[in-house]
Amino acid sequence: MMMSTGEGAAPTTLTVVSLDLTGDLIALFRQVVDIESVSGNERALADEVEIALRQLPHLRVARDGDTVIAKTELGRAERVVIAGHLDTVPVAGNLPSRLVGDVVYGRGTADMKGGVAVALAAAAALTEPTRDISWIFYDHEEVEATLNSLTRIAAERPDWLAGDFAVLMEPTAARIEGGCQGTMRFTITTSGLASHSARSWLGHNAIHDAAEPLARLAGYQARVVEVDGLTYREGLNAVGIRGGIAGNVIPDSCQITVNYRFAPDRDVAAAQAHCREVFDGYQVDFVDAVAGARPGLDLPLAAEFVAAVGGTPTGKLGWTDVARFAALGIPAVNFGPGDPGKAHADDEFCPVADLHSCYQGLLRWLG
Amino acid sequence: MMMSTGEGAAPTTLTVVSLDLTGDLIALFRQVVDIESVSGNERALADEVEIALRQLPHLRVARDGDTVIAKTELGRAERVVIAGHLDTVPVAGNLPSRLVGDVVYGRGTADMKGGVAVALAAAAALTEPTRDISWIFYDHEEVEATLNSLTRIAAERPDWLAGDFAVLMEPTAARIEGGCQGTMRFTITTSGLASHSARSWLGHNAIHDAAEPLARLAGYQARVVEVDGLTYREGLNAVGIRGGIAGNVIPDSCQITVNYRFAPDRDVAAAQAHCREVFDGYQVDFVDAVAGARPGLDLPLAAEFVAAVGGTPTGKLGWTDVARFAALGIPAVNFGPGDPGKAHADDEFCPVADLHSCYQGLLRWLG
Repeated sequence: MMMSTGEGAAPTTLTVVSLDLTGDLIALFRQVVDIESVSGNERALADEVEIALRQLPHLRVARDGDTVIAKTELGRAERVVIAGHLDTVPVAGNLPSRLVGDVVYGRGTADMKGGVAVALAAAAALTEPTRDISWIFYDHEEVEATLNSLTRIAAERPDWLAGDFAVLMEPTAARIEGGCQGTMRFTITTSGLASHSARSWLGHNAIHDAAEPLARLAGYQARVVEVDGLTYREGLNAVGIRGGIAGNVIPDSCQITVNYRFAPDRDVAAAQAHCREVFDGYQVDFVDAVAGARPGLDLPLAAEFVAAVGGTPTGKLGWTDVARFAALGIPAVNFGPGDPGKAHADDEFCPVADLHSCYQGLLRWLG
Repeated sequence: MMMSTGEGAAPTTLTVVSLDLTGDLIALFRQVVDIESVSGNERALADEVEIALRQLPHLRVARDGDTVIAKTELGRAERVVIAGHLDTVPVAGNLPSRLVGDVVYGRGTADMKGGVAVALAAAAALTEPTRDISWIFYDHEEVEATLNSLTRIAAERPDWLAGDFAVLMEPTAARIEGGCQGTMRFTITTSGLASHSARSWLGHNAIHDAAEPLARLAGYQARVVEVDGLTYREGLNAVGIRGGIAGNVIPDSCQITVNYRFAPDRDVAAAQAHCREVFDGYQVDFVDAVAGARPGLDLPLAAEFVAAVGGTPTGKLGWTDVARFAALGIPAVNFGPGDPGKAHADDEFCPVADLHSCYQGLLRWLG
């Protein structure tokens, strides 16, 4: 599908010019958006990213599957990792991109091709950064964690991710969102005794028994926690409930699925202990869990980043890949163009101003 | 599959002799059980029943589909309808029948081929009953009501069901169970607002809102009601609950399905009004409902039946086809061999004593 139009090549109806990293940022952004790259179909975009980066003599470029890394090797005292994923959720009639006023609409504009475009432009511009930089463009972020290429890279090429601080260019409306909350799911199961509903007193209704744990959830006061100077707001919510055998049978089981979003001052074990305490007396079974990440903004490197970018950092409430860096011991923040509330929305968009703001922020910090 | 062995016919490995209505009652019962007649497959058994009844000169026999009716026409002042269904729920490795001590095991032994066998034997024995009798053997009882042949007969041949009193030979352990309770299903739906579970305060959790109506159910005190001298125990129970969109989304809807079993002093409208009252403030949607049936044991005809059979009548808690007779203005009771608690069970059985007891009871009443 992808064609590089060399000199003298006849134009076709499906002409895509190679990415121009040093020209107009918005034009670059729209090029990146218009190369469809739904998870599993990142190859065309990864090819273009690799071709463009290999033209820059100050970068050493490598590729693994559809993940591309480009590093400066200037022997600086510190190394910063700046990462973004190339893939998007499925297209919903929202490609190609449309520029309406000062806003670009289209699949991936918010999550997160704005970050990719800014990173590509900054990678080209920062020929002699104050810290060494590893630029990472990776695949399969919008699907199950086992497919996420950061998981594979961390296991097989940990040196690719090595650094003193990481910036994940997920959408934050060009503000710094530090760390991320952890998330876990567990089930609460009530057990009864089945009987014919015409003689219900011979059984015991497990769905009725769900009233009490649901009341605990309804009355639960979620914590608001300050961690490393940032505020995190937790949440404990039923996200599913299932019970019942047939229309004439007293149900012998009811299962509530609960999602706990927890601040990064708690690790998975502490979060599980808390949930066991809240549902003391009930059967609690943990389904899955991922730890969050502390914001790490107490580092001098991070403080300089905050100063360069401006604004007041906030705590990231959703779980993001910053936690993968945190798990490797690398403090990480989210910082990218686009409204996070519009991620995955059919009308997702990115304000042009966010792109310029993020680009200038990176150049002030590392230039 | 069915063969009648005429004189001189060579015996085969699958020999079924015609039903002998005047011989040993237990042998007749086992013949009826061993002719498999899962709902939709009643033809072979209906054929045998029709053939056997047509041999009795005191009965006028008619057939409609797989329903057989046999009537005396002696010009008595009163007419009694005695009915039983020929079909069973699916076989579960429990055919042919097994006689173990004084108990016969096998599909249909409890529900309700014991009643069918007793009715066939009594139909043959009661050549000059004190009241005219309509014996009805019908199909498709164990499936949805629209297929039940009593529904069709009531609409197309109401004269077949005409009478002053009806006995439905469903299993009651050879005791009289008067009338039946009504049953209805309805849903209670709570509504919320979906949001990402990382920012749960932007949404409203509909599953948490189910705590309060479930608490009403858990605390509900079901009525124990006396109707026409019999006691009915009601029940109001959740039989299903469903809610949830995805593991990271605050659910915007939760639906509880409730089954109300109500005594026959309430009609469907009164039962619905009661449920609306119990769940005042909630969205209640009625799914289906069938009225119960008053026991009608205040009739002289019924009192004589009770005296002839003996024992203390009780209220029938499950819904049965007696309600179809009640809807036609005919008082009806349940009276048949077999433990109703074993209906549909893989180990269903019928005590031999129940068969004799029911047979003798009918003969005392109508002989």
